[in-house]
Amino acid sequence: MDIQLTFEALDKKFTSFGGLKQGGITRLLYSQEWNDAVRELEKTFKEEGLEASFDDIGNLSGRLVGSTYPEETILTGSHIDTVVEGGHLDGQFGILSALVAVKYLKEKYGQPLRSLEVLSLAEEEGSRFPYVFWGSKNFFNLAKKSDVDTIEDAKGIKFEDAMRQSGFDYRKTEDVRNDIKAFVEVHIEQGKVLESENKTIGVVNGIVGQKRYTINLKGEANHAGTTPMSLRRDTVVAYSEIVTDLTKRAREIGEPLVLTFGHVVPVPNTVNVVPGEITFSIDCRHIDQQLLNDFATEIEDKIKLVAEANDMTYDIHLWMDEAPTLMDKEIVQTIEQAAKNNVGDRYKVMPSGAGHDAQIFAEYVPTAMVFVPSIGGISHNINEETKIEDLVKGIEVLSDVLYELAYKE
Amino acid sequence: MDIQLTFEALDKKFTSFGGLKQGGITRLLYSQEWNDAVRELEKTFKEEGLEASFDDIGNLSGRLVGSTYPEETILTGSHIDTVVEGGHLDGQFGILSALVAVKYLKEKYGQPLRSLEVLSLAEEEGSRFPYVFWGSKNFFNLAKKSDVDTIEDAKGIKFEDAMRQSGFDYRKTEDVRNDIKAFVEVHIEQGKVLESENKTIGVVNGIVGQKRYTINLKGEANHAGTTPMSLRRDTVVAYSEIVTDLTKRAREIGEPLVLTFGHVVPVPNTVNVVPGEITFSIDCRHIDQQLLNDFATEIEDKIKLVAEANDMTYDIHLWMDEAPTLMDKEIVQTIEQAAKNNVGDRYKVMPSGAGHDAQIFAEYVPTAMVFVPSIGGISHNINEETKIEDLVKGIEVLSDVLYELAYKE
Repeated sequence: MDIQLTFEALDKKFTSFGGLKQGGITRLLYSQEWNDAVRELEKTFKEEGLEASFDDIGNLSGRLVGSTYPEETILTGSHIDTVVEGGHLDGQFGILSALVAVKYLKEKYGQPLRSLEVLSLAEEEGSRFPYVFWGSKNFFNLAKKSDVDTIEDAKGIKFEDAMRQSGFDYRKTEDVRNDIKAFVEVHIEQGKVLESENKTIGVVNGIVGQKRYTINLKGEANHAGTTPMSLRRDTVVAYSEIVTDLTKRAREIGEPLVLTFGHVVPVPNTVNVVPGEITFSIDCRHIDQQLLNDFATEIEDKIKLVAEANDMTYDIHLWMDEAPTLMDKEIVQTIEQAAKNNVGDRYKVMPSGAGHDAQIFAEYVPTAMVFVPSIGGISHNINEETKIEDLVKGIEVLSDVLYELAYKE
Repeated sequence: MDIQLTFEALDKKFTSFGGLKQGGITRLLYSQEWNDAVRELEKTFKEEGLEASFDDIGNLSGRLVGSTYPEETILTGSHIDTVVEGGHLDGQFGILSALVAVKYLKEKYGQPLRSLEVLSLAEEEGSRFPYVFWGSKNFFNLAKKSDVDTIEDAKGIKFEDAMRQSGFDYRKTEDVRNDIKAFVEVHIEQGKVLESENKTIGVVNGIVGQKRYTINLKGEANHAGTTPMSLRRDTVVAYSEIVTDLTKRAREIGEPLVLTFGHVVPVPNTVNVVPGEITFSIDCRHIDQQLLNDFATEIEDKIKLVAEANDMTYDIHLWMDEAPTLMDKEIVQTIEQAAKNNVGDRYKVMPSGAGHDAQIFAEYVPTAMVFVPSIGGISHNINEETKIEDLVKGIEVLSDVLYELAYKE
């Protein structure tokens, strides 16, 4: 079979569910488009000779039972939902690359020793309801009814009602599967590291930990004309010092540390008033927990120092503190070898700076990820794209990895 | 007569026109409260033996005709309008201090050699309609019908309609008075220089020039997790460098240069996206035109340098460029001597960092200003206040100045 043609046909078909005139997809959890997509995927699994089954909440499996170790499952896939006006690759490529790889292996090598299972996770993005990882959290019985039983979408539709209208419901059992021997998720990078380094495959060795802060500084609002510089407690000046110094420090510490001051609102935010108050965000990520913690201490110390030096009060609110997730070393090695075989030195072992379903899986089963490049690093956007030859390489690498995991003793 | 008691009675009476329950005044141009205030002021002028007369647009004069040089006028006053929820001193104190001083001089010394005239200017703040200095600009025939004939207030009431309903109309003549030999405006400082230096009187030697910019930088929006620091074109980081470096430079250059970055909006202004665009304001003021121009060049050079170093496009829009206004040296000296006589060394020769009617007058007639301290520098706020003993000293200094200008050969 031709991997490229097979993928392109599947991609065209599934991009039609929620596909937008201008390109891209809007396919929100339990929407009509989402329903159409998962029902079509169920049909496609069956056509390909896979055992198709939904779990209670709408995760969908397509299973090729193993001959020797049918109760050992090599799992691969990603999420079927998208953000609003998202691209056709984020999530969907992880499912379709898995399907193409399993179809290819089945055609070429027949039945595997271990079971191979393609997984479509119901939800990852949190784009319709204020809840993320609904699919993968349910897979491990981590999501609670109380997490979602009061939440609504932007139109006021209750999560529960949307779920039930789609024919799904809360998980009925506490049982968690113990047959999963590996989970491999293929995903677009959503950054431009691979592109800028001219690499085709990213071998993901971990998902960064992240801390997010909201910081507030209070100085004093004053008339911009009548207040000498020496009598000011200007929070924009204090903020700028914090941004400048911490950014310099983050660059000194070096990759993969990233630091972002994405949100800022001074008060009163008027041209002729010295801003007496400011609220801003800090987003900070690293794959190494100790380094992340150490830098967080530097962040907090710097804010205190600048606030005190400028006679300001400060509030430091750490509202997200996620630990880094390490991928399984053996699977990472298997992926790295497969990458070498397929693209020579055009691969890079790298952390993921964004969150993925794989971080939920990695807590419970041996897990790793394969990245393919994103053109211009663009994602969560209808212009999200990857060169077709890179997508094909991603599928070939995944095929080789699944072969190693499912076909070899 | 007792200056304090006289002032306090007048202040209480006029604060009632537009006076707010919580304190302060809202008295917008051509509103009912404004009308009540100017009609009561006309009545008060008459009761005090002054010739009261409105001009076409609603500036009100109270004139004490001189004996020897009746056609030489010493003018003093300020504006009668306030900002929304303003204080009871901004503008009003300039009129009432003038009235008290003239009443005091008339009672103590009788008729002056030159005419003394108390002036209530119709409008200065631009708080109801988007036009400032309507009063003083009309005084010198600088305002055009076309400046205001299409503007409206927030309720959609046309400027023209509000003016005519108040009984006023456009200026009917091109003639400009040539009898004004001096204009002295008393005003609260609206800053805290005098308070912080424990001074009672500010002898204003000029009104600062100011430049206001809107700056836009365009870099690239990126995912905060997947974009390494080295691949970012982060406009908040560039902005912070500009703020930090230019603020440092402004402090090096020293007073009275002031520099304010009051307004900033990054795009998309979201915690987890590297901000690809930013728009911010710069407000920069100095009493010396050359120094202001030189610093503006530094501002523009710095923005270009930082933008180019960070591979960003920039737009530098200078939308306000007002020249400094120097006060009349002889009147400044007269005020300084009067200050010495009344408060010893507790006065300061200083520029005004805010705009005032005096800057319009200074282009055409010898002009100067007297400042009294603002508690905490607070103004344009119902909590605007000045110690009563400082207000009295302001009136006493004005009286001495008017005596020198109107009673002496």
